[in-house]
Amino acid sequence: MKHFLSTEDIGSLPEWIAKGKELTENPKDLRSLGNGKTLCLLFFNNSLRTRLSTQKAAHLLGLEVIVMNFGSEGWNLELTDGTVMEHGAAEHIREAAAVVGVYADLIGVRAFAGLKDRETDKAEGILNGFAAHSGIPVINMESATGHPLQALADALTISGATKKNRPKVVLSWAPHPKALPQAVPNSFVKIMRRMPVDLVVTHPPGYELDVDITGAYTPVYDQRQALEEADFVYVKNWSSVTRYGEVLLRDSTWMMTSEKLGKAQFMHCLPVRRNVVVADEVLDGHQSLVLRQAANRTVAAQLAMMHVLGKS
Amino acid sequence: MKHFLSTEDIGSLPEWIAKGKELTENPKDLRSLGNGKTLCLLFFNNSLRTRLSTQKAAHLLGLEVIVMNFGSEGWNLELTDGTVMEHGAAEHIREAAAVVGVYADLIGVRAFAGLKDRETDKAEGILNGFAAHSGIPVINMESATGHPLQALADALTISGATKKNRPKVVLSWAPHPKALPQAVPNSFVKIMRRMPVDLVVTHPPGYELDVDITGAYTPVYDQRQALEEADFVYVKNWSSVTRYGEVLLRDSTWMMTSEKLGKAQFMHCLPVRRNVVVADEVLDGHQSLVLRQAANRTVAAQLAMMHVLGKS
Amino acid sequence: MKHFLSTEDIGSLPEWIAKGKELTENPKDLRSLGNGKTLCLLFFNNSLRTRLSTQKAAHLLGLEVIVMNFGSEGWNLELTDGTVMEHGAAEHIREAAAVVGVYADLIGVRAFAGLKDRETDKAEGILNGFAAHSGIPVINMESATGHPLQALADALTISGATKKNRPKVVLSWAPHPKALPQAVPNSFVKIMRRMPVDLVVTHPPGYELDVDITGAYTPVYDQRQALEEADFVYVKNWSSVTRYGEVLLRDSTWMMTSEKLGKAQFMHCLPVRRNVVVADEVLDGHQSLVLRQAANRTVAAQLAMMHVLGKS
Repeated sequence: MKHFLSTEDIGSLPEWIAKGKELTENPKDLRSLGNGKTLCLLFFNNSLRTRLSTQKAAHLLGLEVIVMNFGSEGWNLELTDGTVMEHGAAEHIREAAAVVGVYADLIGVRAFAGLKDRETDKAEGILNGFAAHSGIPVINMESATGHPLQALADALTISGATKKNRPKVVLSWAPHPKALPQAVPNSFVKIMRRMPVDLVVTHPPGYELDVDITGAYTPVYDQRQALEEADFVYVKNWSSVTRYGEVLLRDSTWMMTSEKLGKAQFMHCLPVRRNVVVADEVLDGHQSLVLRQAANRTVAAQLAMMHVLGKS
Repeated sequence: MKHFLSTEDIGSLPEWIAKGKELTENPKDLRSLGNGKTLCLLFFNNSLRTRLSTQKAAHLLGLEVIVMNFGSEGWNLELTDGTVMEHGAAEHIREAAAVVGVYADLIGVRAFAGLKDRETDKAEGILNGFAAHSGIPVINMESATGHPLQALADALTISGATKKNRPKVVLSWAPHPKALPQAVPNSFVKIMRRMPVDLVVTHPPGYELDVDITGAYTPVYDQRQALEEADFVYVKNWSSVTRYGEVLLRDSTWMMTSEKLGKAQFMHCLPVRRNVVVADEVLDGHQSLVLRQAANRTVAAQLAMMHVLGKS
Repeated sequence: MKHFLSTEDIGSLPEWIAKGKELTENPKDLRSLGNGKTLCLLFFNNSLRTRLSTQKAAHLLGLEVIVMNFGSEGWNLELTDGTVMEHGAAEHIREAAAVVGVYADLIGVRAFAGLKDRETDKAEGILNGFAAHSGIPVINMESATGHPLQALADALTISGATKKNRPKVVLSWAPHPKALPQAVPNSFVKIMRRMPVDLVVTHPPGYELDVDITGAYTPVYDQRQALEEADFVYVKNWSSVTRYGEVLLRDSTWMMTSEKLGKAQFMHCLPVRRNVVVADEVLDGHQSLVLRQAANRTVAAQLAMMHVLGKS
């Protein structure tokens, strides 16, 4: 059985990208692929793009969709084995996952990092619990430490927009008033390592990503130096890993501007706080790829579903 | 591109009414009209009739539907351009609307008046934001100042139920414990002006509607005088426009009763507080048209969707 | 018009069970049965199994589905006739039900016991209100005093798993930190009386079920005595009926264990608190039928829908 839990579940990235382009440029009626099958989308957190693009992809593949906001519509889940469930959670993930597996043919799960305890988040209790106990394929719709659908959409976007064989791609940290997870930068770094690009990661000291997840990298602490000659600039806030989940800095000089962007194309996964993370001029300018990234989320979701259905 | 934002988006009302009757009296399988297209319904407020009738209409037209309670499932939206988004909203309506436009072929938006600031409500930030930035047709499922789907259903109902060429239609204010928006009376007055009816509006002093929206009218402050010889009586509460959003009066003598109704047919958009807005005897009597109005909501939604799809 | 409000709406239980086995063992494409019809699912309470299995069953029967969390997405409902609705509820169930009946062809309703007032719960105001005023068939997705879909799934499960002509079935009360309704045990007792089984009900004194609902029975207060030679053990907590809605006892010796279970097959409707209601060893062992019960929820929902559609 195939899952889509992380970017590692993408076998040959060039093949996936080629297939994605085919889906976009030469769309066919694929509704027979999922005919009679049910996709259950489980949201433990809010969502706009993921909610819509995943349903859209499911419709394109002829899947029936059941959407559930697990947090508000279901029961609190116990994740630890052996617990005496006297308090809190009314259901164990073993039963919840198995039961969803009885009704659905594939599952999408969205469960963010809690940002309270690093080891808890790295254990990916909810995502892995559904993969372990549902008996059916699971698709990661953003988990505590990864967002492979976004990373795949980003790879498709860069692949489609590049004018060079080997573009320079810069991942640039941005300020933000709230503590955000590292899922997006983690998966972006991982997938860029598999692309024909030169990747540079720039952030202030203290914002080093978890190299257990991303693999070793040499951060550039000087943003302007990092941005020199960039072809693509991916801007994203994340909270500190070492001082886990903390906001260490709100230095607005890290905000992306047209002047800093230069001739590069701009990327962001959205939602984005205007004039905090990036200036209006960049988002509203013609170098912005954010809507192409959003459109490629549908393609990424189709590819992930076709993969786990064995139809890729 | 065609929207359905207000009653002004209805070109020839007689033609729309004729088409609505055809849909009701001679229903055909229209599921090929929307085949392969996706309608995204965005609810910023609660809804029963609109939620159900719009989905029902979409099914009849073969549209795929994605329903989203934007307030609880998505991100708070910033509506003002140029804001430094340090606080509150996590996403700007420019991105949110554009992204929905990437995934859907048409959008329904429900966003009530906040009733705190009149100019803010009249700006219709959410509805107009989606119309301006999504790039796809938008249908108003009740906005701050208008409810054209309800008005269209009301026009269909009166047209179907009248026994006269030119009936007298009375819009009569009713008491209510809470401050309600003026969206329904605004759109009702506007559409009635385009119908072959004599419209009389009755309410206590201080409850004058916004003539910028409805056009000038002469209120009748004496309810009994207004109701004389009425053929249709549309009852509805709204809060004050001049003392914006305030409840000025809870005078139960304005409640509609069988005695006051006389031989007229009774209308209300629902939900309705029994024995506050209208007496049980009226709602349970055979002069009530409220369920026909509700049924015509499906027809109105079909007409609006066919209009924006260019299939009317 | 046929409803599915309680186990009494099941005409010949053997026929329903035979039909259920046919649906499972020899599945056919039944999507033409519900073609063009709309099922509206109204949730006044949380749900996982019911939410998913009912939608799954609807898809199998070709029904369009509209799901609504009535509590959070709609309006508070007034259930009492003649009320002056000055406070609280914004809509009367008479209008709400009638309006849903305008848009849908059948309704599912989930409305738990409030456990505050016994007579209020026994009146089943929401379920019966929809049945009385919607004008279309209503399916009980768990109400204050009954859960016939669960009971039917349980009957299907026992019928499929028994190795004897007349097995011994024990319903055994279990401890739980919260006050739970009696809907599941009520319907289980009622349906077991119609099965070729010997039913024994065991619980501590003070936990007697409402014999107005279940019919008279002789409780066995000694759990070990009750469990002797059991073939099926159905474990479930419920709160006291006589001291209505109270938790009288949290005696962990009533928890089900492998030693107490012996050779019997284990049943529970889920969700279940592990190591409070039942030990891990039982749920994880091969005598557990909980997932077969869950799978039979889809079959039960199909049977109920086919019944009310007149297609059984």
